Amino acid sequence: MDLSVFSNTLTSALAELHYGNQPQELYEPIRYSMSMGGKRIRPLLTLLGAQLFTDDWQRALRPAMAVEVFHNFTLLHDDIMDQAPLRRGQPTVHVKWNPNVAILSGDVMLVRAYELLFDIEPALLPEALRRFSQTAAEVCEGQQLDMNFEKEAHVSIAQYLDMIQLKTAVLLGFALELGARLGGASPADADHLRRFGTDIGVAFQLRDDLLDVYGDAATFGKRVGGDIVSNKKTYLLLTALEQANEAQQATLQRWIGNNAPEAAEAKVAAVKGIYDELQIRTRTEALINEYFQDALAHLEAVQAPAERKQLLRGLALQLMEREN
Amino acid sequence: MDLSVFSNTLTSALAELHYGNQPQELYEPIRYSMSMGGKRIRPLLTLLGAQLFTDDWQRALRPAMAVEVFHNFTLLHDDIMDQAPLRRGQPTVHVKWNPNVAILSGDVMLVRAYELLFDIEPALLPEALRRFSQTAAEVCEGQQLDMNFEKEAHVSIAQYLDMIQLKTAVLLGFALELGARLGGASPADADHLRRFGTDIGVAFQLRDDLLDVYGDAATFGKRVGGDIVSNKKTYLLLTALEQANEAQQATLQRWIGNNAPEAAEAKVAAVKGIYDELQIRTRTEALINEYFQDALAHLEAVQAPAERKQLLRGLALQLMEREN
Repeated sequence: MDLSVFSNTLTSALAELHYGNQPQELYEPIRYSMSMGGKRIRPLLTLLGAQLFTDDWQRALRPAMAVEVFHNFTLLHDDIMDQAPLRRGQPTVHVKWNPNVAILSGDVMLVRAYELLFDIEPALLPEALRRFSQTAAEVCEGQQLDMNFEKEAHVSIAQYLDMIQLKTAVLLGFALELGARLGGASPADADHLRRFGTDIGVAFQLRDDLLDVYGDAATFGKRVGGDIVSNKKTYLLLTALEQANEAQQATLQRWIGNNAPEAAEAKVAAVKGIYDELQIRTRTEALINEYFQDALAHLEAVQAPAERKQLLRGLALQLMEREN
Repeated sequence: MDLSVFSNTLTSALAELHYGNQPQELYEPIRYSMSMGGKRIRPLLTLLGAQLFTDDWQRALRPAMAVEVFHNFTLLHDDIMDQAPLRRGQPTVHVKWNPNVAILSGDVMLVRAYELLFDIEPALLPEALRRFSQTAAEVCEGQQLDMNFEKEAHVSIAQYLDMIQLKTAVLLGFALELGARLGGASPADADHLRRFGTDIGVAFQLRDDLLDVYGDAATFGKRVGGDIVSNKKTYLLLTALEQANEAQQATLQRWIGNNAPEAAEAKVAAVKGIYDELQIRTRTEALINEYFQDALAHLEAVQAPAERKQLLRGLALQLMEREN
C-alpha cells in the first residue's frame, strides 16, 4: 500500500465534511481554515496507526478528521494570540474577518472535533474521549507556556522541551495512539505508538527551529532567521545561551537587545556566527537524531507486520528530512 | 424535598471541582470565573430534571456541572467579544488578565465541560454527547447572530426571538433534557422538559429586556435604561419600531442617532415615553406570559409525580418574578 491511498482518502473525506450553514460569519471561516491545506500529518498518523492492525483502517477516518479539525482549531486561536497575519501564505481568520469571528469559529471547531469522535464503537469511546480531552488540555497548556516564555528572562532547555512536548508532540502521539486503538492494538502497542509520535513531534519542532536558521531561503517559505530577529527562545538560542563563554554571552545579549529593523540582517549574521562557533547546528541535529532513534525503537517494539510499519517509518523520515 | 438540597449539593460539588494546576495563567482564570457564583440555574435544572424520575438524582451531578462549566465558558468568551469590563460586579477575565488568557482558559473550560460528561452510563453517553455538542454549536450561532444584529439596520422580531432561542434558551432546554434522560425519562418526557426549558429560557431573556427599562434601580444591579442608551435591539425596541406611527418612528430614530453621553438621561426618558404610549410593557409581559404558560403545559404533560414537578414549577416562577 502506498501513502497516497491514505492521503487521498483523507483529502476527499475532509472536503466533504459539513460544519454548518448559518450564520455564515461562523461557518465560512471554518471552511476557509480547513481548506488552507497543510500537510495533514496528524490524521495521516491516525490512519497509519490503524492500518498496522487492521485492513479496515477506514473506521479510523472520522476520528482522524477529529484530530485535524482540532489541530486547525488550535491554529485559529493561536494565530489570534500570536497576532499572526498569515497562515500558509494566506490571511489568518482574525485578519480576514476579525478576532471575534476567529474566537467563535474556533469554539465551534472544537465542538465539531468532538462530534467526529462520537461514532467510535461504544467499547472504545470513553477512553478515546478522555485521552482526546487530556491531550487537548495539554496542547492549551503548551500554548500558555509558550506565551509565558516570551516574557520570562530565563527559560531552561528542559522547560523548552517540556513546552514543545505539550504544544506540538502530544497531539502527534495521540493521533497515533487513537488510530492504533481503533485498529485493535493492545494498550502496550498503542502506548509504543504514542511515544513514537511524541518523539517524532519533538524532533519535528526541533527541525523547525533548525530550518529557521539553516534552511534554504528558496524552499523554507519563511524568512530565514525570523526567530533570531524576534528573539524567539528556540532550542538553538537557549543552547547557545547555555554554552556561551562570557564574551559570546555579552554579544548575544547585545543583539537580543537590538530590535532595530535596519539591524535585522546584521543580527541574524552575528547570532548565526555564534551558533557556528558553538556548533549549535551539530548539537541540534544530534538531539533530533536521538529523538528520531527513540521513535524508531518504539515503532520497532510494536507487535505488527514489519511491512505495515514501513509506511510510518517512511513518513517519519520524510518529516525529518523536510526542508520546509 | 427542598430546592436548597439540590443547590447546596451543587455548590459543594462545584467548589471541589479540579481543573488543573500548571501553568497558573491557564487555570487560575477558570477557578476565578467559576467562583464568581451566579444563580447556577442551569445545573439546578439538570438535577431537578433527574429527580422527576429517580431518587438517585446525584448521578446527574457531574453532567449538571458540565452544563455550568460550559455556560461559564460562553460567558468568558462572550465577555471578550462584547468587551465587557465587569461580570457579576467583578472584573472580567480578559480585563483582570488579558484577552489571550481569556481565549485559552475558555478553550480549556470547554474541554473540561466535555470531560464532566464522560462518566454517563455507556447506553446514554453517545446521545448525551451529541445533544450537548449540538446545543453548544447553537449557543455559538446565537452569539454570532447577536453580534451581527448590532451592525444590521433592520432586525425583525422573529429574527430576535430566534437569536435568543439559540443564545439563551437551548441551553436551559438541554440542561433539563439531560437531567431527565439521566433520571430515566422516556424520549417523549425528555422532549417535553426540553421545551419547558426553552420556553422558560425565552421568557427569561424577555424578562431581562423588560427589567432593563422597568426594573427597580435599587434591586436590578445594572443601570436602568442601559439597553436604551446603547441602542440594543431588544424585544422592546424592535416592537416599538414595528408599532410606532410616523411621528414616533421619527422620534425613536432621532434618539437612536443621539449617542452623546450627556443626553443619556433624556434619551432613556424619551424612549421610555414612546414605549409607554405603545404599551410596550404590557405587550412584553403578555408574550412572557405566553411562553410561561406554554412552558407549564409542557411540564404538565410530563409523566412524573405532581409533587416532584412542584420544584420545577417553583423555580420557573421564581425566574419569572425575579427583579434582577
